[in-house]
Amino acid sequence: MTTGTDRTGDEPKPDETAIPVVEMRRPRWGDPARVTELPAAAAALAGDATEDRGVPPESITPRESTLPAAVRADLEAVVGAGYVAASDDERVQHTRGYSTPDLLRLRAGDAVDAPDLVIYPADHDEVVRILQVCAAAKVAVVPFTGGTSVVGGLAPDRAGFAGVLSLDLRRLDRLVEIDEVSRVATLQAGLRGSAAEALLRDRGWTLGHFPQSYEGAGIGGYAATRSAGQSSAGYGRFDEMVEGLVLATPRGTLDFGTAPRSAAGPDLRQLILGSEGAFGVITGVRVRIRPVPATRLFDGWRFDSFADGATALRRLAQDGPLPTVIRLSDEVETAINLADPAQRGGDSTGCLVITGYEGGDQEVRRRRDAASEVLVDAGGTALGSGHGESWRTGRFAGPYLRDPLLDAGVLVETLETVTYWSKLHELRASVTAAITDTLTASGTPPLVMCHISHVYASGASLYFTVVAPLGADPIAEWASAKTAANNAIRAAGASITHHHAVGRDHRDAYHDEIGPLALDALRAVKATVDPDGVCNPGILI
Amino acid sequence: MTTGTDRTGDEPKPDETAIPVVEMRRPRWGDPARVTELPAAAAALAGDATEDRGVPPESITPRESTLPAAVRADLEAVVGAGYVAASDDERVQHTRGYSTPDLLRLRAGDAVDAPDLVIYPADHDEVVRILQVCAAAKVAVVPFTGGTSVVGGLAPDRAGFAGVLSLDLRRLDRLVEIDEVSRVATLQAGLRGSAAEALLRDRGWTLGHFPQSYEGAGIGGYAATRSAGQSSAGYGRFDEMVEGLVLATPRGTLDFGTAPRSAAGPDLRQLILGSEGAFGVITGVRVRIRPVPATRLFDGWRFDSFADGATALRRLAQDGPLPTVIRLSDEVETAINLADPAQRGGDSTGCLVITGYEGGDQEVRRRRDAASEVLVDAGGTALGSGHGESWRTGRFAGPYLRDPLLDAGVLVETLETVTYWSKLHELRASVTAAITDTLTASGTPPLVMCHISHVYASGASLYFTVVAPLGADPIAEWASAKTAANNAIRAAGASITHHHAVGRDHRDAYHDEIGPLALDALRAVKATVDPDGVCNPGILI
Repeated sequence: MTTGTDRTGDEPKPDETAIPVVEMRRPRWGDPARVTELPAAAAALAGDATEDRGVPPESITPRESTLPAAVRADLEAVVGAGYVAASDDERVQHTRGYSTPDLLRLRAGDAVDAPDLVIYPADHDEVVRILQVCAAAKVAVVPFTGGTSVVGGLAPDRAGFAGVLSLDLRRLDRLVEIDEVSRVATLQAGLRGSAAEALLRDRGWTLGHFPQSYEGAGIGGYAATRSAGQSSAGYGRFDEMVEGLVLATPRGTLDFGTAPRSAAGPDLRQLILGSEGAFGVITGVRVRIRPVPATRLFDGWRFDSFADGATALRRLAQDGPLPTVIRLSDEVETAINLADPAQRGGDSTGCLVITGYEGGDQEVRRRRDAASEVLVDAGGTALGSGHGESWRTGRFAGPYLRDPLLDAGVLVETLETVTYWSKLHELRASVTAAITDTLTASGTPPLVMCHISHVYASGASLYFTVVAPLGADPIAEWASAKTAANNAIRAAGASITHHHAVGRDHRDAYHDEIGPLALDALRAVKATVDPDGVCNPGILI
Repeated sequence: MTTGTDRTGDEPKPDETAIPVVEMRRPRWGDPARVTELPAAAAALAGDATEDRGVPPESITPRESTLPAAVRADLEAVVGAGYVAASDDERVQHTRGYSTPDLLRLRAGDAVDAPDLVIYPADHDEVVRILQVCAAAKVAVVPFTGGTSVVGGLAPDRAGFAGVLSLDLRRLDRLVEIDEVSRVATLQAGLRGSAAEALLRDRGWTLGHFPQSYEGAGIGGYAATRSAGQSSAGYGRFDEMVEGLVLATPRGTLDFGTAPRSAAGPDLRQLILGSEGAFGVITGVRVRIRPVPATRLFDGWRFDSFADGATALRRLAQDGPLPTVIRLSDEVETAINLADPAQRGGDSTGCLVITGYEGGDQEVRRRRDAASEVLVDAGGTALGSGHGESWRTGRFAGPYLRDPLLDAGVLVETLETVTYWSKLHELRASVTAAITDTLTASGTPPLVMCHISHVYASGASLYFTVVAPLGADPIAEWASAKTAANNAIRAAGASITHHHAVGRDHRDAYHDEIGPLALDALRAVKATVDPDGVCNPGILI
């Protein structure tokens, strides 16, 4: 058969699991040693604005701590005085997450949401004891692994609380056990994703979970927010990888999933996955692992339209075979991406599809051949592996661009949703219009790009990237656009989030999505495990 | 390549989706028009006992109804007087489920658990109003679709309640909608599985959910108990098929899953799936459907030992390709099954594996070839498609055997569990020993058979069939054996159920499995949606 794909570039490229664990410095993304120049296409967006990097974080003084000294002493008694920190720098570096409004606030010197204290427990039992101290003292507790929330998940309510504690899990960084027969690894929640992959890779295993936040995010955050990685078609979403998990609550420990695929009652793992710290702190997970793939092949494809490309993705999702990675950019995103000279090929019309296959050599080639047959039959034109490899090796570069764009006066932000296939195009149109109309009305007309990056038999995610000039009050302007987008999403019956979670930014839309009786039920669960309401108050619930 | 399988018998056989919807008559299983003769192997177990069919159900008089007349009038006002029933026969036919103790009790004329009244609502709104009437009057409500529970799910607590109402959903029997693009069907909960398949097949679709209770069980029951069908490897468990569901509670309606694969908060569908009527009544589901397969191929394989067969199944589950159906019988079950002259082939040593493949013709043949390669490599000997087709066409015959065996003085009962692959063999040994030792001590030494019928990357189910002479007090004797088995399961860290659910029979073990804090959380949810506690009281929680 003819797959239409070339075979140059089949040689494995540097592996993203070898990416070093970096210490980010808010408000900028990623490895501070890495200098990111704006590519030509991005520089064109920026125009000739003067570069402005904002207030340096080390010069920001957060609000005065409200935490009573006696509470601090109690906390020090749990972890040791060396493992609590109240320096300005540590407080600022635990302030909010990585949404564009979060960055804009910190760039403006606003650290009003800084925690009063940062604590670094050594193990699960210390986490339970910290929660008990905080419950007794009415101190709000924010679990912190990577700190990469883009939905306000790290900025709890302060009103009514004696203070806010950032509970940083970085010392819970062990690969505890690998059950090689069952292919299940027990990981502590404070491990960064990249650190977990490095530990697993030394033993021949991988999680295969590579969200765009991979360099920053942690295992506990993945679980608490139902993270989905770029290889979700092949490896599953993070919530599908979790066989079991352990939650520390002010009332003690919950440990679910001692056996896989139980039918005993509600699936209580699913009550903790996505709970975003509102029920307590996830301290460990038992997750599915797979052998490090022997072969990785990535291809590019061109479709005439987003609709044609979406139909092709749907066919693969419904009838197989499914690649490990599959994504479709719309016309705007395709044109922007392919305008970059670093991307091969001259044709920037139509819609770009990236397919990736990982696994055993023979199985990967079989799957690629069969999927390629479907893509050709659905109207796709093979662009060869150059586009695919270019996407793969550049997959974590995107977030690095946001900082120099902001420096140059360009707002970049993303949002995402998920719906059934039958409603997908209507949803894309209505969200695009909502954002475009709102930002145009406020004098900052945007460019709105969209891609599908996660497909299921019944539906797919839509991920929007919005680029616009920074206006006079960009936080308020974006808030209006975001509200309009949320309203369009809810009006279409879609979900307010496919993988960014709820936090406080999506809270109202989430409550609309689940309805008041379900919200009552969640509040009842919270009141049971967290009767004093100190666990990430104002987030989710 | 050589698969080792023959290709005779590739012609499609009669399709189980064409099985008629039968009206069962408790305490006997299945189509009353179907006469089941004991096969030779089963007759040998029975020995020369005198046949005893027990008390005819039509001659049983249930306890006097305790339901106040005013409540009955209120219920009649909701559904119409023609849709409530209090005849002895209808009450007896809604008494308990289909566990062997349930059958023994009814065969002995014991209908102490009969509901006071049976009600047949027309739609979701009537169900909500019934629940509100019952909440106000403190009447316990048992949802009833197929009535095939084997864990006491239909026998709620009566103490403290003004009566017990069986809420029979059979009038909610519509295929409401098919979204062909998204491959999602909306089904009302009162549809029997076989009726749903017939409706879907007329439009070219299938659920692919075929539990052994297929002839009796209903859609609502599948969802409420996390049912798993025999084709779970290919089509998924029922809980995996559910994209969304609607629950009627005394406080109104919950509707979850308006979009697929949301990351917005806990997955609330998973709180309702497996809730067994304790939170309300599931009245409809949105479920994944697939095209009726063009091709079905079933094969038999022989492995020298259960351990060898389990390793082969694990390889397929972890590295693929996974058949649509895959099961492994241990030595005892293999010997019993293959002793039946209806089964082809003379060799009844070793362990029988059945593999089935359903789908498009080319895809099925590719998958079968690739899986057969793995099975050969893992030490399997192909037995040809005869054994496979024999299993497929006889797959729903098993439950019909239990009644004539009981008539002949032979107790048959099943139980099941699930664990990680690394713990599987130890679990099988300890459960087998627990049952064998207990029943031997009570003077009724059993034959204990086991099979694996559901496999996952991380683990597998174990399904035990126990055959023993009926002793002097078979209910008590079985209860002791069951308790011993439950203790062995819990001691091994396995789950108390893989697909039979909790009911009241597994309640204590379930509470041990999830722990007291999780139980508190579930009670808080129940108190929220069912503040008067009338929804299937004593079941699950």
